[in-house]
Amino acid sequence: MTGNNQPIKGFRFGAIAAGVKKADTERLDLALIASDIPAQAAGVTTRNLVCAAPVEIVRERLQSGFCQAVLMNSGNANAYTGIRGKSDAYELTQLAAKKLDISPELIVPMSTGVIGNPLPMERLRPKIPSLVERLCSGSYMDVAHAIMTTDTKPKTVILDGETSNTPFRILGMAKGAGMIAPDMATLLAVILTDIKVRPSLLKEFLVEAAAETFNRVTIDGDTSTNDTLLVLSGGHQGAIDLGQNSSDEDSFFWALKTACKDLARQIVRDGEGVTKVVEIRVVGTENEADALKIARKIAESPLVKTAFHGEDPNWGRIISSAGRGGVLFRPDIVDLSIGGIPVVRNGTLVSEDWETAAHTAMQQPEFTVELDLKMGDSSATVLTTDFSEEYVSINADYRS
Amino acid sequence: MTGNNQPIKGFRFGAIAAGVKKADTERLDLALIASDIPAQAAGVTTRNLVCAAPVEIVRERLQSGFCQAVLMNSGNANAYTGIRGKSDAYELTQLAAKKLDISPELIVPMSTGVIGNPLPMERLRPKIPSLVERLCSGSYMDVAHAIMTTDTKPKTVILDGETSNTPFRILGMAKGAGMIAPDMATLLAVILTDIKVRPSLLKEFLVEAAAETFNRVTIDGDTSTNDTLLVLSGGHQGAIDLGQNSSDEDSFFWALKTACKDLARQIVRDGEGVTKVVEIRVVGTENEADALKIARKIAESPLVKTAFHGEDPNWGRIISSAGRGGVLFRPDIVDLSIGGIPVVRNGTLVSEDWETAAHTAMQQPEFTVELDLKMGDSSATVLTTDFSEEYVSINADYRS
Repeated sequence: MTGNNQPIKGFRFGAIAAGVKKADTERLDLALIASDIPAQAAGVTTRNLVCAAPVEIVRERLQSGFCQAVLMNSGNANAYTGIRGKSDAYELTQLAAKKLDISPELIVPMSTGVIGNPLPMERLRPKIPSLVERLCSGSYMDVAHAIMTTDTKPKTVILDGETSNTPFRILGMAKGAGMIAPDMATLLAVILTDIKVRPSLLKEFLVEAAAETFNRVTIDGDTSTNDTLLVLSGGHQGAIDLGQNSSDEDSFFWALKTACKDLARQIVRDGEGVTKVVEIRVVGTENEADALKIARKIAESPLVKTAFHGEDPNWGRIISSAGRGGVLFRPDIVDLSIGGIPVVRNGTLVSEDWETAAHTAMQQPEFTVELDLKMGDSSATVLTTDFSEEYVSINADYRS
Repeated sequence: MTGNNQPIKGFRFGAIAAGVKKADTERLDLALIASDIPAQAAGVTTRNLVCAAPVEIVRERLQSGFCQAVLMNSGNANAYTGIRGKSDAYELTQLAAKKLDISPELIVPMSTGVIGNPLPMERLRPKIPSLVERLCSGSYMDVAHAIMTTDTKPKTVILDGETSNTPFRILGMAKGAGMIAPDMATLLAVILTDIKVRPSLLKEFLVEAAAETFNRVTIDGDTSTNDTLLVLSGGHQGAIDLGQNSSDEDSFFWALKTACKDLARQIVRDGEGVTKVVEIRVVGTENEADALKIARKIAESPLVKTAFHGEDPNWGRIISSAGRGGVLFRPDIVDLSIGGIPVVRNGTLVSEDWETAAHTAMQQPEFTVELDLKMGDSSATVLTTDFSEEYVSINADYRS
C-alpha cells in the first residue's frame, strides 16, 4: 500500500498562487498533476456548443489515448476568448512540457472561472517553472484547493479496490458549485488510478459512469462551457494491466462509478446557496428514459426547489412538474412519498396526517422524493438541491 | 359607444367574498361573468398532463362553441381532487345555471389556488344565488380582483377596433403571478368582445394569438394544472357578425392579439418577486423554431435571471445558455447587445467600455437582450424576468 506521502503511485501534484483573477493574492490558483510515464487516458467534455479553448485542446489531445500531465487553473475559464484563448492555452502547456521534458501533446489544460477575459499570461508564464519544481507525490489536496471557485471546500475521494491479479487505488478530485447541470455536471474533475486500463475501455467506462453520476445531478440546469472529466490510469513504470475478464472489469468499473458518484454528491452538497440535497427517484415507468425525463422536470422546477427550501411538502408542485415531462402517465394511480412519508397513494392524498411528518422529514439536510407511476419496471434517480435566497444573492453579485 | 357603466355590451359581472381559502374573510374570491345570450366561445387550456377538474369541464363544454357564463374562484385550484373535484365543479355550475335560468352546459368553471384540497362546498353553495343577484354591467374590476392569488394588482385591458361594418370592443382580464411558463402562460384569462365571431374562427385566432403572446412569457418555467384562456364573443341580441373578408378578420385578430399581449406583459410585470422584465430577442436564425428554442434557454436560465437581478451584464452566461439550446450556430460570429448596448460583435467583446453602459441600461425596470446568430432571417422573442431573493421567499413560504 502507498503511504500518506504517496497517496497514489505514479502521480505527483503541485499548486501555486499565480494571481489568475487578481495579481498579488496568496490564493492557490494554478495547479499541475503529472505522471511518471504517459498514462492511458480518457475524457468526457461539455455538450455546450459554446466551449472553452482548453476543452477543445482536451478533445484534440486525448485522441491519442495518452496523457502525462494536467495543467489547471481557477479564476478564469479561458472561454469565449477567440483565437487568442487557444494559443494562450497551447503556450502554457508548452512551457510546462518543456520544464517537464515531455511532449506538449501529452499535457492537457483545464480552466474554470469567469468567461470572456483572456488569461493574464504575463502573470502565468513566469510561474510555470516553479509550479513544476513543486511537484511532489503527497500534495494532491493543494490541487483540489487550487481549482476551487465558489466551492466552499475541496472535493476529493480515495477508494481501494481489488482485482484477481492486483489491488488498485482510485484518487479523484473535483470542483463544482454553480452551473451544475444534467448534461455534464462537474465543472472540472480528474480521476487517477494506479492500474492500467486500455484507453478504449477506459473511455467506455468513463462515459457510462458519468451518465449515471455526474449527469444525474442538477443545481441550476445550466451546462458550463468548461465541463471536463478526465481519467488517467497507470502512471508508473510498474503499473499492472487490468485483467481482461469480466469480473476484474466489473470491479474496476464499480470503483470508478463509486468515485464519480461520491464526487458528484460532494458537488451537489456544496452547490451555491444549497441547504438541501434531494434525491428525486421516479419508478414504475416503461423505460429508463421516461423516468429520467420526469425526474429532471421535477429536479429543475424552481417552484419545487423553493418548496424544498421552505421544507414545504408541496406535493402539488411535484406532481404538476411531473405532468409536464412529456411522458404519458395516469395521475390518478400514482404513489408519492416525501422524505419516506407516503403522501399520495393511488392518486389520492393519504388520510393520515402526512403533512407534519413530511415537513419534519424535510428538515433533514438530505431526503428523498419518490414518485411511482405504476406503468412498468424502470426507474431513474436525479440528485437536486433547493433554491435559496443565498443562491440568488451569490449569483446576482458574482462579478461585482 | 358604451359608457362607464356598461364597459362592454352584452356582459355582466359579479363577485363576492365566499371564504374559499379561509372562512370569514372579506376578500372577493368567487366571481361570475354572464352574457345576455349564449356567446360564441373558444378556449385554450394547459398542456400539463395533470390538469384540474375545471379544465376538464372547460374542454367538454366548449366543444359546443357556445358559452353564456364563467364561474371563477381563487384560493383553491380544485386540482388533483379526484372524482369529487369534478362533481363539485359540476354542482356549482348547476346551481348558478339554475339561478341564471340557463342550461348548465353553457357555464364553465375556472379555478386557481392551492392544489389538492377539495373545494369548501359548504361555504360556496350558499353564495351562488347572491353572486348571481349581484351581476351588473359595470363591475368587471371586481371580477379581476376576485381571481387574484399572489398577484399584486388586477390585470385588465380594454381595446376598441373597427371593421368595415361596425366598431367593436375587446375587454380582457387575467390573473398570473407564479407558475407562468411557455407552454401556456396565463393561469386564468377571459377575453370578451361585443362582435360575433364564429367559434371555429375564434378558436383559430385564439390559438395563434396565444402562441405569440401568452406562450412567449416565462417566469419560472412551470406550467400550471389550471391554465385556461377563454374568449366569448357577441353576448347580446344585437351583436353584429364579423365581416367575412380578410381585412375585417385581420382587424379583429390584430386587436385580439394586442389584448393578449397586453395582458401577458402585465402578468410578467407582476410575476412573483419580479424586479426586471426582459425581452429576449433572438434573430438571424434559419427558422422561427430555432430562434424560439434559444430564446427560451436564455429566458429560463437561473444564472441569467439572477444576473439580470444583479444588473450584471454577464454576457458569458447569456451566450453559454444559448449554446445549450440544441441549435447549431457559430459562437465566433454572433452579435449580442444588452439594453441596447453592443457587447459582443462578430464573436468578440467590443473594445469600447460597454460594461458601465450596459450596467446602466440594466438599471431600468425593462430592457432588451438581443442575440444575432447571423444564420438566416428568422427571429423570436420571449419575455422573461429576473430571479430575486423575494421570488424564493414567496415560494418557499407559499403554504405556511
